[in-house]
Amino acid sequence: MSAAILPDPVALTKALIACDSVTPARGVVFDVLEAALTPLGFAVERFTAGEAPDGPVENLLAVRGHDGPHVAFAGHLDVVPPGAGWSADPFAGEERGGLLYGRGAVDMKGAVAAFVAAAAQVSADAGTLSLIITGDEEGPALHGTRALIERMAARGIRPDFCLVGEPTSVARLGDTIKIGRRGSVNIWIDVPGQQGHVAYPHLADNPITRLIAILAEIEGLVLDDGTDWFQPSNIEVTDLNVGNPAHNVIPGRAQARLSIRFNDLHRGADLAARIEAIAHKHTPAAIVTPLISGEAFLTQPGALSDAIGDAIEAATGTRPELSTSGGTSDARFLSVLCPTAEFGLVNATMHKLDEAVAVADLHRLTEIYADIATRLFRG
Amino acid sequence: MSAAILPDPVALTKALIACDSVTPARGVVFDVLEAALTPLGFAVERFTAGEAPDGPVENLLAVRGHDGPHVAFAGHLDVVPPGAGWSADPFAGEERGGLLYGRGAVDMKGAVAAFVAAAAQVSADAGTLSLIITGDEEGPALHGTRALIERMAARGIRPDFCLVGEPTSVARLGDTIKIGRRGSVNIWIDVPGQQGHVAYPHLADNPITRLIAILAEIEGLVLDDGTDWFQPSNIEVTDLNVGNPAHNVIPGRAQARLSIRFNDLHRGADLAARIEAIAHKHTPAAIVTPLISGEAFLTQPGALSDAIGDAIEAATGTRPELSTSGGTSDARFLSVLCPTAEFGLVNATMHKLDEAVAVADLHRLTEIYADIATRLFRG
Ligand SMILES: [Zn+2]
Ligand SMILES: [Zn+2]
Repeated sequence: MSAAILPDPVALTKALIACDSVTPARGVVFDVLEAALTPLGFAVERFTAGEAPDGPVENLLAVRGHDGPHVAFAGHLDVVPPGAGWSADPFAGEERGGLLYGRGAVDMKGAVAAFVAAAAQVSADAGTLSLIITGDEEGPALHGTRALIERMAARGIRPDFCLVGEPTSVARLGDTIKIGRRGSVNIWIDVPGQQGHVAYPHLADNPITRLIAILAEIEGLVLDDGTDWFQPSNIEVTDLNVGNPAHNVIPGRAQARLSIRFNDLHRGADLAARIEAIAHKHTPAAIVTPLISGEAFLTQPGALSDAIGDAIEAATGTRPELSTSGGTSDARFLSVLCPTAEFGLVNATMHKLDEAVAVADLHRLTEIYADIATRLFRG
Repeated sequence: MSAAILPDPVALTKALIACDSVTPARGVVFDVLEAALTPLGFAVERFTAGEAPDGPVENLLAVRGHDGPHVAFAGHLDVVPPGAGWSADPFAGEERGGLLYGRGAVDMKGAVAAFVAAAAQVSADAGTLSLIITGDEEGPALHGTRALIERMAARGIRPDFCLVGEPTSVARLGDTIKIGRRGSVNIWIDVPGQQGHVAYPHLADNPITRLIAILAEIEGLVLDDGTDWFQPSNIEVTDLNVGNPAHNVIPGRAQARLSIRFNDLHRGADLAARIEAIAHKHTPAAIVTPLISGEAFLTQPGALSDAIGDAIEAATGTRPELSTSGGTSDARFLSVLCPTAEFGLVNATMHKLDEAVAVADLHRLTEIYADIATRLFRG
């Protein structure tokens, strides 16, 4: 393989940005990626999953090699809608002052391009590389990485390490990686009562009174004090809803919604059961409906975080912080397969107007990704 | 005055029902009343007050005599909208099976007619009688009884007793009269916070957390244990409003609305100040907005309730219960002038479809009203 045909991460990022791929993504943006991977020796499989409105979603699985340690890179080609007010066309991939502008520049077409460019620098004989790429990470994520994991199981593909290319860097490329994420569960509490006139409260049963008692008890919960790697789990009441326009009427129903972000001391279902027990203590008829977006996960510091940290230090001179903060990502699905960590570009402009990546960062990230794979292959 | 020209309470009730007089009322229904009063020696003054949409409202002040005790009858000729689904025309005044059907039959055209008929039975020399009649009791009551009280002050008209003709009877004519009413205040609590993402709660300030603390403290308040004549004062939270559709967002504002029904141990403004102090303890920036619908009042049992009770007992054989329950009425305005009590028809059908009064009750109420005036004139 001559240096002349090595893919350029900047050119590939531009080519990917040029494909409008708002969630759910499919089609041309995947054609561009496939065209970059095939010459590098990857066997590429693409499939769509799901139906409108959440789909169809395209997913891509690319594998090179069979032997040695298997390092998987996971990411997404879908982007959030650009919104109005950009200083340039969000799908033009304009370069200006050392920055490359475009929706998806840092989240995360730039990281996908960097990994492809890195793969070209890593010997195909040193180990197995794969890319696990979805078109539905920013959306409901129902038909994306989960479908890819099922497909991998069907094909007998089992990575030893997984590197997720989310933009984890905060102020400077490589300052932060994620070795875990908190779990997330939303819980709806619906308290029925007996409607009536405020002048005759004995004939009514005010559901707000019961809901306040439930919520006051929930506000008093201390789920934990945090762990070595996680902040304390946290409960926020994010909505209250009664919708009673009549000043003189005790309403017949009151609702609240909670969001719990929890560390790996908890499971979503257990937390939902605790909330339900509190609600039922005050109102046996309360309806408690949990929706678990993801369980907490932690990849204990070890071979994977060492390889990432060493590669970052070699390139930048400083070691990254190992973080578990922030929202959820597809790493929650992948972490059940193998040690999983996240490392990518600077996230300052992600999901914002004028999303942009430093051109120098694309080159440096390519170098670091290649070094990470090489270190993991060496063992 | 010969018996032949005595007004018949049933015929007059029918004539009043025939005038559609949904709040705000004016015009023909007052013409009918004036035409019934003038032959009985009443000096009638009519005036309108207020503007759209709450007005204009017509009010009528009728006085007969100058000497002796002054007994005023207060009431209203406006009615609530009939609604759909009546078994007969709600403005036809149809008589069927001993019942007279129509919107306003018991609330309170029947009582107004009974008082006019009673006035015809009472000697004009025994004392002063007056009628204080508004077209805006069922509505906002901004331009009704309050305007009449101002007009009475301007004319130097000061009753010694006031009998309000609201339908206070529950199961049987005369079983219940009102000697007071609770006060009513609605209070809005608006808690500002700092919006943010649930994954970063330290960057936000959840107003729901503060609102729950405020409401939990309010729910713990015991305002009083009731009095000889009043139930305990009561607080109901009647609405909660956040309106946050985003599951991952801590909202920037949370609101609640309270309704307090309070006895004569409290004043509306004091209660509002207590609620505000609780809100400000938890959130100095909370905005607390009270709207006082009426203060509590009590006419201690005495000459007025004795005369009403004696007259009812003479006609029915049983004494009425002296009650202060239920919502507010215009008696809250009149009670500042003189001892005020409420007694009228059976309220089972008020504000409902097929509102109806027993024809026998109209005759009996006429007899009781006449007896009450006679007893109060006697002193
Ligand atoms: Zn992303
Ligand atoms: Zn009424």
